[in-house]
Amino acid sequence: MTRADPIPRSRENDYSKEQAATRCEFITGRTGARLDTISSYSIDPATVRGNVENFIGTVQMPLGLAGPIHINGEHASGDFYVPLATTEGTLVASYSRGMRAISESGGVKTTVVKHSMQRAPVFLFEDALQAREFGAWLIANLDEIRAVAGSTTRSGRLVEIEQYPVANMLYTRFCYTTGDAAGQNMTGKATFVACEWIKRKHPLKPGYFLSGAIDTDKKHSAMNMIQTRGKRVIAEFTLKREVARDLLRVEPADLYRYRQIAAVGALQAGSVYSGAHSANGIAALFIATGQDEANVAESHAGITYGQLLENGDYYWSVTLPAVICATHGGGTGLPTQRECLQMLDCYGAGKADKFAEIVAAVVLAGDVSLTSAVLAGDWVSSHEAMGRNR
Amino acid sequence: MTRADPIPRSRENDYSKEQAATRCEFITGRTGARLDTISSYSIDPATVRGNVENFIGTVQMPLGLAGPIHINGEHASGDFYVPLATTEGTLVASYSRGMRAISESGGVKTTVVKHSMQRAPVFLFEDALQAREFGAWLIANLDEIRAVAGSTTRSGRLVEIEQYPVANMLYTRFCYTTGDAAGQNMTGKATFVACEWIKRKHPLKPGYFLSGAIDTDKKHSAMNMIQTRGKRVIAEFTLKREVARDLLRVEPADLYRYRQIAAVGALQAGSVYSGAHSANGIAALFIATGQDEANVAESHAGITYGQLLENGDYYWSVTLPAVICATHGGGTGLPTQRECLQMLDCYGAGKADKFAEIVAAVVLAGDVSLTSAVLAGDWVSSHEAMGRNR
Amino acid sequence: MTRADPIPRSRENDYSKEQAATRCEFITGRTGARLDTISSYSIDPATVRGNVENFIGTVQMPLGLAGPIHINGEHASGDFYVPLATTEGTLVASYSRGMRAISESGGVKTTVVKHSMQRAPVFLFEDALQAREFGAWLIANLDEIRAVAGSTTRSGRLVEIEQYPVANMLYTRFCYTTGDAAGQNMTGKATFVACEWIKRKHPLKPGYFLSGAIDTDKKHSAMNMIQTRGKRVIAEFTLKREVARDLLRVEPADLYRYRQIAAVGALQAGSVYSGAHSANGIAALFIATGQDEANVAESHAGITYGQLLENGDYYWSVTLPAVICATHGGGTGLPTQRECLQMLDCYGAGKADKFAEIVAAVVLAGDVSLTSAVLAGDWVSSHEAMGRNR
Amino acid sequence: MTRADPIPRSRENDYSKEQAATRCEFITGRTGARLDTISSYSIDPATVRGNVENFIGTVQMPLGLAGPIHINGEHASGDFYVPLATTEGTLVASYSRGMRAISESGGVKTTVVKHSMQRAPVFLFEDALQAREFGAWLIANLDEIRAVAGSTTRSGRLVEIEQYPVANMLYTRFCYTTGDAAGQNMTGKATFVACEWIKRKHPLKPGYFLSGAIDTDKKHSAMNMIQTRGKRVIAEFTLKREVARDLLRVEPADLYRYRQIAAVGALQAGSVYSGAHSANGIAALFIATGQDEANVAESHAGITYGQLLENGDYYWSVTLPAVICATHGGGTGLPTQRECLQMLDCYGAGKADKFAEIVAAVVLAGDVSLTSAVLAGDWVSSHEAMGRNR
Repeated sequence: MTRADPIPRSRENDYSKEQAATRCEFITGRTGARLDTISSYSIDPATVRGNVENFIGTVQMPLGLAGPIHINGEHASGDFYVPLATTEGTLVASYSRGMRAISESGGVKTTVVKHSMQRAPVFLFEDALQAREFGAWLIANLDEIRAVAGSTTRSGRLVEIEQYPVANMLYTRFCYTTGDAAGQNMTGKATFVACEWIKRKHPLKPGYFLSGAIDTDKKHSAMNMIQTRGKRVIAEFTLKREVARDLLRVEPADLYRYRQIAAVGALQAGSVYSGAHSANGIAALFIATGQDEANVAESHAGITYGQLLENGDYYWSVTLPAVICATHGGGTGLPTQRECLQMLDCYGAGKADKFAEIVAAVVLAGDVSLTSAVLAGDWVSSHEAMGRNR
Repeated sequence: MTRADPIPRSRENDYSKEQAATRCEFITGRTGARLDTISSYSIDPATVRGNVENFIGTVQMPLGLAGPIHINGEHASGDFYVPLATTEGTLVASYSRGMRAISESGGVKTTVVKHSMQRAPVFLFEDALQAREFGAWLIANLDEIRAVAGSTTRSGRLVEIEQYPVANMLYTRFCYTTGDAAGQNMTGKATFVACEWIKRKHPLKPGYFLSGAIDTDKKHSAMNMIQTRGKRVIAEFTLKREVARDLLRVEPADLYRYRQIAAVGALQAGSVYSGAHSANGIAALFIATGQDEANVAESHAGITYGQLLENGDYYWSVTLPAVICATHGGGTGLPTQRECLQMLDCYGAGKADKFAEIVAAVVLAGDVSLTSAVLAGDWVSSHEAMGRNR
Repeated sequence: MTRADPIPRSRENDYSKEQAATRCEFITGRTGARLDTISSYSIDPATVRGNVENFIGTVQMPLGLAGPIHINGEHASGDFYVPLATTEGTLVASYSRGMRAISESGGVKTTVVKHSMQRAPVFLFEDALQAREFGAWLIANLDEIRAVAGSTTRSGRLVEIEQYPVANMLYTRFCYTTGDAAGQNMTGKATFVACEWIKRKHPLKPGYFLSGAIDTDKKHSAMNMIQTRGKRVIAEFTLKREVARDLLRVEPADLYRYRQIAAVGALQAGSVYSGAHSANGIAALFIATGQDEANVAESHAGITYGQLLENGDYYWSVTLPAVICATHGGGTGLPTQRECLQMLDCYGAGKADKFAEIVAAVVLAGDVSLTSAVLAGDWVSSHEAMGRNR
Repeated sequence: MTRADPIPRSRENDYSKEQAATRCEFITGRTGARLDTISSYSIDPATVRGNVENFIGTVQMPLGLAGPIHINGEHASGDFYVPLATTEGTLVASYSRGMRAISESGGVKTTVVKHSMQRAPVFLFEDALQAREFGAWLIANLDEIRAVAGSTTRSGRLVEIEQYPVANMLYTRFCYTTGDAAGQNMTGKATFVACEWIKRKHPLKPGYFLSGAIDTDKKHSAMNMIQTRGKRVIAEFTLKREVARDLLRVEPADLYRYRQIAAVGALQAGSVYSGAHSANGIAALFIATGQDEANVAESHAGITYGQLLENGDYYWSVTLPAVICATHGGGTGLPTQRECLQMLDCYGAGKADKFAEIVAAVVLAGDVSLTSAVLAGDWVSSHEAMGRNR
């Protein structure tokens, strides 16, 4: 077999317009595909160093504006206009409608209730008893381990080490707070250094793998749902009956009845989100703001809970146990992405919880709109009118 | 409460540079955020009609090139250079390394084994017996229902109606093949028309909701894992021992041993993907090629399976039960996205299975690289070297 | 290491009082434990041949009587007194209370909505494409395979072969109706013969294992919840408001409100039964009637669904997707167990669906009582009064 | 509707032979069923007070003897003969075979790695923020809450209060060690008293339900798998290659290969036990020893893990995260059940961990035998020979 040509790289200056153009020509030569619009970017290639390799240009994702949404959060407070990057027609309009229903009902409360980002090494022993005793040793030495892990990072802090013994192994989750970063790399490095220290200090010098797979990085898990990963965030509001009727054309009593049916559907299907469609809003907001887009896999999990109130209004909430997001590091500093964060006053230090609250508020808005559309029979017709749908 | 100002819209021409600029100014006026790079797009706003509302510009996602990867698929055959849109440093380099290991081992086989896209109406009855009898009626009238549903679409075809009776309801999944479209809207419309026909024809005139939530649109579910959603795709190759040692610096026997440990971790955590990190490659490829990015939530689920062979090589596979993708419609026709599809010769009619095969191949490549890095101890250091990691 | 003495067995007549006594003496000699009450059984050891090996006597499980419960089922119709074998104080009393609430509300409707018992061979191939083509061959040859499988059994019938391709394997579920038997052995034998036939007939002579583990015999699974195992059974009734208030001392509106909270708890916990405590009634009824008691693991899964009606009554249902039970074979013919079945007019041919309906009715009764006790605050106090609780 | 006759009860002396006979006659009169063998019990009805209501006699479960099994546990040490109550032919013989393979390989190590029994109240608030602050208050007041809960029980001790905020509620798990009791009632009472104290002391006087359903009492859950319920127990041994070949007629390398296939099956099916059939042994041992038989639903969950060793032997383990058992209270003191516990030297104080170790050892033995039978092709034929199978 002849090996296909390698992608051209430059040792001196790989993050340049020229080198990007060289790679585009290489592709055009081999595939016939012209990359004119990919090449028509307005950002400086030097800015993407550390974000991508073999840079050839940019994908331009259409950006729409949803809102305003009125948020009464701990960190996010006021009216927000939310940038959503999407290619799915109707999405921005639908989220905007939900935001309006929320705002006209008085706004949404948002609360971050837990922080926990992990790396999850597994330690190997001769038998389960050794593993259990090692677990006791970890608890006894937690302060020292915390100091060792903490030596590698300014913003990360080791909070606890969860233990899950299986067979002759101890699966652990090293759980951190990570400040304004999502923290997967930070916790990876800190945990690696901690593990090396543990290996030296513990009499058994236990072997380990830095991931025993229970951090479930970039994939949903029951572990995330139960133990939290990233931030656990709750958004809640009370939908006024007149707003439901006038704006959404549904009765709260019907929303409540449908909730029972959808909740049973979620149980029947084993669905990891029991509401309507968290992933749409999360994906669009994540792409807009330079989040790691793969985190949609984890962040979209959640639980919807509602109660019909005696006055006919409807309490409606979403709880998201694994919102993984950042306002610092990763893609947040890229030119267009940074502007999206700035639109929300969420760029940089001290803004991560605020941003997480906005994420939850957006998810709730999307569910309000789509659920109402399913009930009111608007769902198909609005996609016909607004979506390309061909 | 004073209502915040609504987002400016134009009834005449909302998809214009001017109107986008008006909205940007509106945001700058209210938030102080300058949107210079968002406004520096090179695509024609008229092209995003049907993809977004309240357009204000574009997000420029860095695009890197991974590969080449040699694929011996049913539909995808040859060497591919894969466009990945990401902001996560190391990702493109890591996938490229996995692709090289695969190619040097002779390439990857890819197979689409099932097609099934759904809309999932729930029908309401007085009791379970009525629901069960209605289910028998659906089976008896399947040909007519298929014809009615088929009248709304050229490329969609109703294959079967799965039935899940709960309480006094019949939850159903109307399962379609959808050609080169992902098909969520197509199946929504077809099923709506079918349901209206059913409601007229069946003696009980049963009430229904167009979604009983077991289509689990935009969220992972056990239902997807078992029954398939979109395309079920398998990628498999045999990693040669010398490639493992020379390129990846691991022994296949160690990969196999670690597989046991990671599989147990996946069970312990209740993880919906038992390999390393499907979501990274899927998200990056989906964004590049105009897929609905929220589908990462469903598409990232899967099962890894390996066997150490007697000659020391290692059979390695991923099975993805819910790959939701398109080569037609949605965002696939947008300028930069279309070019990415063209790079893969995957734009337009008759290409969806080919594209799905590439998705699975990319996922496998990413797992090969990351898993090896975890074993070889490269994981943290490569992120230090290549990722921004600050 | 010295090997401990083997248990005494008799080649001539192992199922005799004498041989049982010999084994009891053997145990007393080695452990000091006297087995007086175990030895005081009233059944003929000859009757347990085929049910147990190394027989030493019997365990006497206390048997209580619950009811009457009024059932308006397809097969079970009238008032039933239900034998429950249990050692948990309060259980019989609590189920009786629930049965009374159901009966005073007019009785419970019960419906068996699906039958499907499996053996699940996995077939091994070189690659996924071979596996997929083999799957097509199975469909094309289903009639012949059905005939071959059917040749081994009078009451079993192969209905369909579900297919789940993973890697280079085809996991299948051979799904049968099994008449009045639970059917695990019957389907095992039939599927073995069918697999041997398939191996001979198919050009590839595929290797296989008789269980690829997706029959999930004796363990709960999402597969069971979605695809049914054994019988899928639904019980439903409308709790009258005055019965709720007078007998259960709860308001239906409070039951409904609590339902939301418990359903969210079930989602948060990843619970496989969303009601109160199916396993209690199922275990007690299964032991009483000679069911395979390990089937509690599968049979206890299910979904609770309720709706508050406009007149203040409360529709309440349970759906059990994996009730595995028999009225013929296994332990059903043992002396005390048979009497329990006869009490329900459920012994022998043509009674399995009737028995399954009673199972579901019993589960619902238990949930009615316990849920009400949790709400009314009786839960702890009744265990104090009636349970041993020391 | 005429109400069916109530079951006869005696206010003076309901636990007597006479009253049991009266109820049997009542049943015979209404159903025609004769209850001769049910009435032929040898235990004193007075002994079942606190275990059952409306006593009518006993079910006689056949009891077989399995073993010997050599256990090298922390608490269970030596050779054990294990009483199994079952009606499933082959079961005792198969477990005995597995026990022999284990013993001939040097015995099984058993380890209890965690104790945690729960009651799980949910507290209700106006919003998520209140719920979160209440959670902080719980942590700050843990010592006092522990003292209050501890005032109700000698053997129970509140270890921690896990917190799971959802919507405007705080779901909690009050986690206890419970000595030799299973502890569901003990923890119920202790938690009730603690909740009443909390309600009085906390400024908000929060409403609560004693179960928010995340204790998942009597049903399997992901929560159990991750957080433990009852006891988390591990059994492990190394199967010698010659024992595998001579006794089980399989090669360890084939067991290992099959492990991959069965593990993938477990993932595909979403099975809650990844080994062969934990529930069989657990149910039979639980019934024999007076355990609450409904606990099979929770106790059967678990994870199998194996590794082929370089010398050709096979390391094999099971990890059971939710073994719920007792050697004191409940049915453990009933005449036949107590004798079964005494056979294992597991009756009464200080024996619960020893018994839990035996449970895990038995489960492992059953998996060794059945898995080998599936591989060797003995599975169907042995059921033909030994099971009734008609």
